[in-house]
Amino acid sequence: MSSAPSLHGGNRIDEAQRLGCRPEQLLDASASLVPFPPSRALQGCLRRALTDNTLRDYPDRSHQRLRDVISNWHGVDPLMVLPGNGAAELFTWAARDAASEGVSGLPSPGFADYGRALRCWQACQQALPLPLSWSGEMPQPFPLLSNSDVLWITNPHNPTGQLWSRASLEPLLARYQLVICDEAFLPLVPDGERQSLVSLVVNHPNLVVIRSLTKLFALAGLRLGYAIGTPERLQRWQQWRDPWPLNGLAIAAGIALMADRPAFERWIARVQGWVAQEGLWMQTQLRCLPGIRSYPSAANFLLIRGDVSLVPLRERMAHRRVLLRDCRSFAELGERWLRIGLQQRSANRRILAAFKALLR
Amino acid sequence: MSSAPSLHGGNRIDEAQRLGCRPEQLLDASASLVPFPPSRALQGCLRRALTDNTLRDYPDRSHQRLRDVISNWHGVDPLMVLPGNGAAELFTWAARDAASEGVSGLPSPGFADYGRALRCWQACQQALPLPLSWSGEMPQPFPLLSNSDVLWITNPHNPTGQLWSRASLEPLLARYQLVICDEAFLPLVPDGERQSLVSLVVNHPNLVVIRSLTKLFALAGLRLGYAIGTPERLQRWQQWRDPWPLNGLAIAAGIALMADRPAFERWIARVQGWVAQEGLWMQTQLRCLPGIRSYPSAANFLLIRGDVSLVPLRERMAHRRVLLRDCRSFAELGERWLRIGLQQRSANRRILAAFKALLR
Repeated sequence: MSSAPSLHGGNRIDEAQRLGCRPEQLLDASASLVPFPPSRALQGCLRRALTDNTLRDYPDRSHQRLRDVISNWHGVDPLMVLPGNGAAELFTWAARDAASEGVSGLPSPGFADYGRALRCWQACQQALPLPLSWSGEMPQPFPLLSNSDVLWITNPHNPTGQLWSRASLEPLLARYQLVICDEAFLPLVPDGERQSLVSLVVNHPNLVVIRSLTKLFALAGLRLGYAIGTPERLQRWQQWRDPWPLNGLAIAAGIALMADRPAFERWIARVQGWVAQEGLWMQTQLRCLPGIRSYPSAANFLLIRGDVSLVPLRERMAHRRVLLRDCRSFAELGERWLRIGLQQRSANRRILAAFKALLR
Repeated sequence: MSSAPSLHGGNRIDEAQRLGCRPEQLLDASASLVPFPPSRALQGCLRRALTDNTLRDYPDRSHQRLRDVISNWHGVDPLMVLPGNGAAELFTWAARDAASEGVSGLPSPGFADYGRALRCWQACQQALPLPLSWSGEMPQPFPLLSNSDVLWITNPHNPTGQLWSRASLEPLLARYQLVICDEAFLPLVPDGERQSLVSLVVNHPNLVVIRSLTKLFALAGLRLGYAIGTPERLQRWQQWRDPWPLNGLAIAAGIALMADRPAFERWIARVQGWVAQEGLWMQTQLRCLPGIRSYPSAANFLLIRGDVSLVPLRERMAHRRVLLRDCRSFAELGERWLRIGLQQRSANRRILAAFKALLR
């Protein structure tokens, strides 16, 4: 039950304790969250929630208003939306459906939580090895086919940052009993929505898309995600899970953030502008460093690979108060890989300065 | 997926919409939460959480500090504590264990969510009918024996408010493969802790106790509960569920509330004093009303039964801005029963005044 501090990201408090500093001294590039401070609308909504009855009352178990604003954003029926306690809670129920369909194919390296969810239901799973080199041209064709019954897609892929083209994903819907597409990072990707599978759900009952607001609004502590799927599937999930998986503040925040469409669009434009600019800049800068190779990414994180193990480098970066994502928890990667979450320019410079001091 | 407004409690917002008033105009006695405003410590903790990194960072997946303060309170090993996203999330995992042990016996009428959790795992369940009259002497002996493999106990019982004696519960541990004891309301019951099964967990690996901070601190919107069981059982649950079931604010609130032991004890004394005083007063007052019978309760809620259906009365109370708990969702109760959540004296008077105006 104890956390292994260095094997997954976003543990600023534990890492600070381990390193003997205060959490706010650490630049946490091990998680991949938008680095902007919360919007004024969000701050106002949460301050109000502390004084009205949001803390006291049971959360709305129908999630009616939240489902309305999400469905309105995506142009789907509210019955095709199910909010979740972060995307991770929804993977649990997706995995139950997957278990009943047969073998799940998991592109690998990939997000470890799909495997956790499948093991919960004793579902069969099969790793589908992704090629460990790829072009910088995005979107790119999804490179895998398998004999599995269920396919778990992450778009853009985590941890590689590859953006899969919708044109290459759509035919897969005819091939698999069930396709679970995790688009947690897609709203952050410049021009990424054009590759979304959301609009295909209405005609493909074997597709479910999982989204997150956690990354986009840097609300990992609040927990907020949603699934888009057929009403029958989502009603089933709703009946399995407890009546109040989402806390009232997450519900209030989601409504406040998505109900104001122009503000939501402005936020997304700002985020995508940041990813476009800093992603390119960071990749260019990293290319100049000796002993590592950086990989192209469409997302707000990118992979680097060392000529030798990067575990000691990660630790020395940590002692310089910069946390990077250890990749030993990603099957098929390992000691030689690290993942870097993009920051704003000054913090990106801080990461690079630490690299330069250590990589000689 | 839509909520049925009148069949379960704690839906102030939906009810306000249905009744054409503002939520804060409604006196909500349909849920059973402590009616005190949040403590200053809690308010301060949550305000800080909006400005430090609590919203941004992923919640601590080991829940180390929260487990420490909870285990310290109960005098058990931290590995015997697993925090949950409210008690309801923990029922889901308890039910998985129950499913693997055989048939679950559910004292009835009882909390509907146990049945939901068991159905999630396609577990066999059996209703164990409770006698629908009982003495006012508390604690009282648990009245049921069954041939089931698993027993789900609620202490004090919901919806009847009966407090079961520990002396009558302890022998059941030798009889059942697994005993799940929901003590969500126990800290509110005057002298209730003496009937707790928590201290038995260490010698009875087939016992798990579920607790909630939701009722005690009126934090239903924040979601916070915990299980006390063997480390093996809780590690299993931890591996099944997603890595971040609790939101960061709930974790921070739990630590703030339980770490200050004298303040926690003062809060509990105040709550139990209120239940003792208002419970007795309310039962005495209700006894004078025509057409209904009130039942003794050790908890902060009590049942009344009408000579005829009370559904119309509940609706007329709602139009007078007083929400009571419809009992049709409790199997074995039905139209003639209502549950009343205790309030502070002025609000209890408001409930009685509405009754007096309608019950002539």
